[in-house]
Amino acid sequence: MSKEKYKIGVVATASRLSPEVPTRVASLAERLYPERTPDIVFHPQCLSSRGHFAGDDETRAQAFLDIANDGSYDAVWFARGGYGTCRVAESVVRGLTETSKRKAYVGYSDAGMLLAALYRAGFRAVAHGPVAQDILRDGGDAAVARALAWMVDRAPESLEPTVDGVKKTAAFNMTILSHLLGTPLEPDLGGHVLMLEEVGEAMYRIDRSLFHITSNANIRRVSGIMLGRCSNITPNEPNFGMNEEEIAQYWCRRAGIPWLGRADIGHDADNKIVPFGP
Amino acid sequence: MSKEKYKIGVVATASRLSPEVPTRVASLAERLYPERTPDIVFHPQCLSSRGHFAGDDETRAQAFLDIANDGSYDAVWFARGGYGTCRVAESVVRGLTETSKRKAYVGYSDAGMLLAALYRAGFRAVAHGPVAQDILRDGGDAAVARALAWMVDRAPESLEPTVDGVKKTAAFNMTILSHLLGTPLEPDLGGHVLMLEEVGEAMYRIDRSLFHITSNANIRRVSGIMLGRCSNITPNEPNFGMNEEEIAQYWCRRAGIPWLGRADIGHDADNKIVPFGP
Repeated sequence: MSKEKYKIGVVATASRLSPEVPTRVASLAERLYPERTPDIVFHPQCLSSRGHFAGDDETRAQAFLDIANDGSYDAVWFARGGYGTCRVAESVVRGLTETSKRKAYVGYSDAGMLLAALYRAGFRAVAHGPVAQDILRDGGDAAVARALAWMVDRAPESLEPTVDGVKKTAAFNMTILSHLLGTPLEPDLGGHVLMLEEVGEAMYRIDRSLFHITSNANIRRVSGIMLGRCSNITPNEPNFGMNEEEIAQYWCRRAGIPWLGRADIGHDADNKIVPFGP
Repeated sequence: MSKEKYKIGVVATASRLSPEVPTRVASLAERLYPERTPDIVFHPQCLSSRGHFAGDDETRAQAFLDIANDGSYDAVWFARGGYGTCRVAESVVRGLTETSKRKAYVGYSDAGMLLAALYRAGFRAVAHGPVAQDILRDGGDAAVARALAWMVDRAPESLEPTVDGVKKTAAFNMTILSHLLGTPLEPDLGGHVLMLEEVGEAMYRIDRSLFHITSNANIRRVSGIMLGRCSNITPNEPNFGMNEEEIAQYWCRRAGIPWLGRADIGHDADNKIVPFGP
């Protein structure tokens, strides 16, 4: 970087950040980068509260724009997932200026709504990766360290192992991708390796999401699908009869989409970085 | 009808029928129509079981075609919802013959996947309405009586009160509609009054489904949205801050879709008939 300190702005486009996160993240960043500690600024909006969300739609959208359009920031980091990014994505994209295109954007899960919209809008440093709130997971320091390593140094060891900088990639929570297909947020994923993960859904819902995703004409143009981890699967009544990998292979076969095996992503501390694009 | 008895075939395209349903439905039909009891034939497949489903995909698709393509049947009645119709819808539509176009099709919830595909394929007696399994609900006799009254006599009192036979209508469970948008099952709903109901979802999921539905270009061409009942809403953590009607109005406003108020449909014994089309 041409300046002394890498500067990261954190914004919560969905649910409210847990209040202990900023201190823990700052302390980890100091330990990891004693000589060049990145400046990690949590927008005050992260701790706002309005019903389900970290502040109302206008507050969350404006907080994102405050950081994305401020030239002093090098990266916009999603505070956490939860739910609510779809409500602000269109107004955020409308409000972004040229400055915003020069920085990195990292998050996953619900944040995928905005990662998709940014990638569609031509942003080129958009990545699926850990959020600040991941520091609260068991082993969460490693997840946050990985996100920082990609933002600060684009460290190759932070990447999902099959990402090679040549083939195009994209990664999503499958429920989120399902819910952005056909909306103004949907990017062109033709020719991409598409990695999908899930959390907290019953097996029949995973099956239904994969029906929806693999039946979409845009998605049928991907170069292949990889399945990340599906964790905290809720009970299926009766037993579904197939596991998540069998389900993904079934729908790939039906759709004529190449099945490319497992991806090292998921709602856990091992969640690796997947940049959108080559 | 030109023949003596109206003949209804029941098929389970999703989950397995409860074994006590056929006897209870037959007994109700005899009480309701002592002089002209409809012949209600439950395809043996209804009681099949394969993992989550009432038999494997091929068995369920073939059972549907057995009845739909048999000229002796006047109506195809969905045994129940659950999950699995999306897996058979495309092969069913491929296998339907001219004979199948002359009969009525009644169901809702998961069956919406196939109602949509049939309507898209030009079928003109497709209706959202009670399934056979509804007889197990409190007051379920009334629900089944209503489905029979529409199938046997097209009884006007079975209809959702705003259905007038002039304006075009369609009705769906919102999760099901969300998951068929962008697939080969999606019908053209331009100019239709679209009625949506939900069951067993948290408020944030209702919000997300309505984001997805109302952000779709095809859906934005409907003449308006009516909200049916949203029952058994699961807890939202934290409190969502809006109820389902406020959510529906919010998304209609954002999408420029006329909000037309409440519809008399839902996962309950009061669920009224909504024909697809005029």
